[in-house]
Amino acid sequence: MHEADVAADALVLPDLDAIRSAQSRIAPHVHRTPVLRCRSIDAEAGAELFFKAENIQRTGAFKARGASNAVFSLSDQEARHGVVTHSSGNHGAALAYAAGRRGIPAFVVMPESAPRTKQENVRRRGATIRFCAPTLEARDAACAAIQRETGARLVHPFDDVRVIAGQGTAALELIDESPGLGAIVAPVGGGGLLSGTSIAVKSGDPAVRVFGAEPANADDAARSFRSGSVEPLASTTTIADGLRTTLSPRTLSAIRAHVDAIRTASEAAIVRAMRMIWERMKIIVEPSAAVPLACLLEGALDVRGMRVGIILSGGNADLDRLPWQS
Amino acid sequence: MHEADVAADALVLPDLDAIRSAQSRIAPHVHRTPVLRCRSIDAEAGAELFFKAENIQRTGAFKARGASNAVFSLSDQEARHGVVTHSSGNHGAALAYAAGRRGIPAFVVMPESAPRTKQENVRRRGATIRFCAPTLEARDAACAAIQRETGARLVHPFDDVRVIAGQGTAALELIDESPGLGAIVAPVGGGGLLSGTSIAVKSGDPAVRVFGAEPANADDAARSFRSGSVEPLASTTTIADGLRTTLSPRTLSAIRAHVDAIRTASEAAIVRAMRMIWERMKIIVEPSAAVPLACLLEGALDVRGMRVGIILSGGNADLDRLPWQS
Repeated sequence: MHEADVAADALVLPDLDAIRSAQSRIAPHVHRTPVLRCRSIDAEAGAELFFKAENIQRTGAFKARGASNAVFSLSDQEARHGVVTHSSGNHGAALAYAAGRRGIPAFVVMPESAPRTKQENVRRRGATIRFCAPTLEARDAACAAIQRETGARLVHPFDDVRVIAGQGTAALELIDESPGLGAIVAPVGGGGLLSGTSIAVKSGDPAVRVFGAEPANADDAARSFRSGSVEPLASTTTIADGLRTTLSPRTLSAIRAHVDAIRTASEAAIVRAMRMIWERMKIIVEPSAAVPLACLLEGALDVRGMRVGIILSGGNADLDRLPWQS
Repeated sequence: MHEADVAADALVLPDLDAIRSAQSRIAPHVHRTPVLRCRSIDAEAGAELFFKAENIQRTGAFKARGASNAVFSLSDQEARHGVVTHSSGNHGAALAYAAGRRGIPAFVVMPESAPRTKQENVRRRGATIRFCAPTLEARDAACAAIQRETGARLVHPFDDVRVIAGQGTAALELIDESPGLGAIVAPVGGGGLLSGTSIAVKSGDPAVRVFGAEPANADDAARSFRSGSVEPLASTTTIADGLRTTLSPRTLSAIRAHVDAIRTASEAAIVRAMRMIWERMKIIVEPSAAVPLACLLEGALDVRGMRVGIILSGGNADLDRLPWQS
């Protein structure tokens, strides 16, 4: 399909071949992260868990996969003027990283209120930050202005077929290294990771169950999954800051087609799961990455006795403010 | 050598064969931990660093190696009445773990003042805790009393040839997986790890340099290395709680024979190195494990441009009190 047609179709999704192509395309730029086990957490969860450690992915999150696939899918002509996105989190750093690998400029639009550490994480990878007022309108206007002024291509954090294909590569690797998985659980914010994961998993083996996990305090994806339309966020009070985003029609359509259920976890369970991963596995994960385990520990996922893959989505936690410290 | 003779000789040390035997003996009971790389830390250090991740070892520290070797070196007759040690830290948990694997009792002597989390770490592995007053005399008396009452065998945290042989196995694996190392750095407290490491390294290739790393605030090993006698601790004010121990004549003799130098790091550098490992590598290490990198960052180790192995000794950090939080 020609790029203009793709852009015109807000519902186009990658297939398994596109995810496999993404895997080859990004291989020089991302880590094949390890799959970790922890028997004491298995005992708590009553299941055999296979943790895909995207917290140690380049830039500290799975986002490096989607951003790299988008950046390296561009022709030289398209890439010439760089790329632009809006993100105050991991996607901004990932796009800056991927653009740096390709040697093209990156522009990241952020609200003026973005924490200094997140600004730093984008800036030290060589991207240019453009600040905007903290509204959706101001954000989109700033992105459009940069596109007009510079000719940079937009790489949306999740509503992008190339980004979704890239995110699906983590599940391909997880399945490959963990034979006999009965289920895979991924956190869901905008839905790029869950879309890519569900397409990768179900295209290979429809019997493997795929679950989304989100905070009960930001349960828009669970509500959207039930209603069939993109539902707004009711609040943004969760500590899982990576999941304070609604789906897009594109990610909702993938999730409705391929995901078995979306489950939610309480804030207390997210904190408990995050601390359990730090203490028992000796690895650092951010709150969003702990949401699948939190659902499991609260009994919201019926996977007892199964082999379950969990995508530990990122490790960019704020080391100055730990959620179990008041 | 007969066991009674070994016990009588306070200076007997393992050779490379003993370390290799330990490696086979403990293989079913410990992890072969991965060797991790981090290019952004390499850039800060000006060297290529190969981190042996003993923070994800069973029980969260390399101590599982020495304790397992000691416990599984005992004959059935010797093991029958269990094992005893004194430790308020990682060795107590490691001995409890190894005894549990062998199905024999473990007794751990601790000062009454030991933090509750450390008590818990020993108790939940099935060991019996005996409390004593916080003096060396009370500790040794409590150990001796348990030996008399129960027939349990003493497994000293570091002044034990079987323990030293076990600790040396980490370096064997590190060398095996990291070709071309010019130097290896290990933290030094009682000296069991550094003794085992230096014997393993120098017996294989005397050209590889071996360094000990300790806090400037607990520089007894550096002073002992220079003077040739076991020097007392001047203070115990370092955050590297695993390194608040003096050498024994046995570990000092190994270290004087095989170690090139002992370097020290400031408390500020230890905190900075620990945070750097957490932030960049997304893994949890305890303060003691960060001391080698701290020495490197402060320029106390002349290894510029070299390939350097670093033993990340443990990951049992207190998650409620991070040293960069005041």
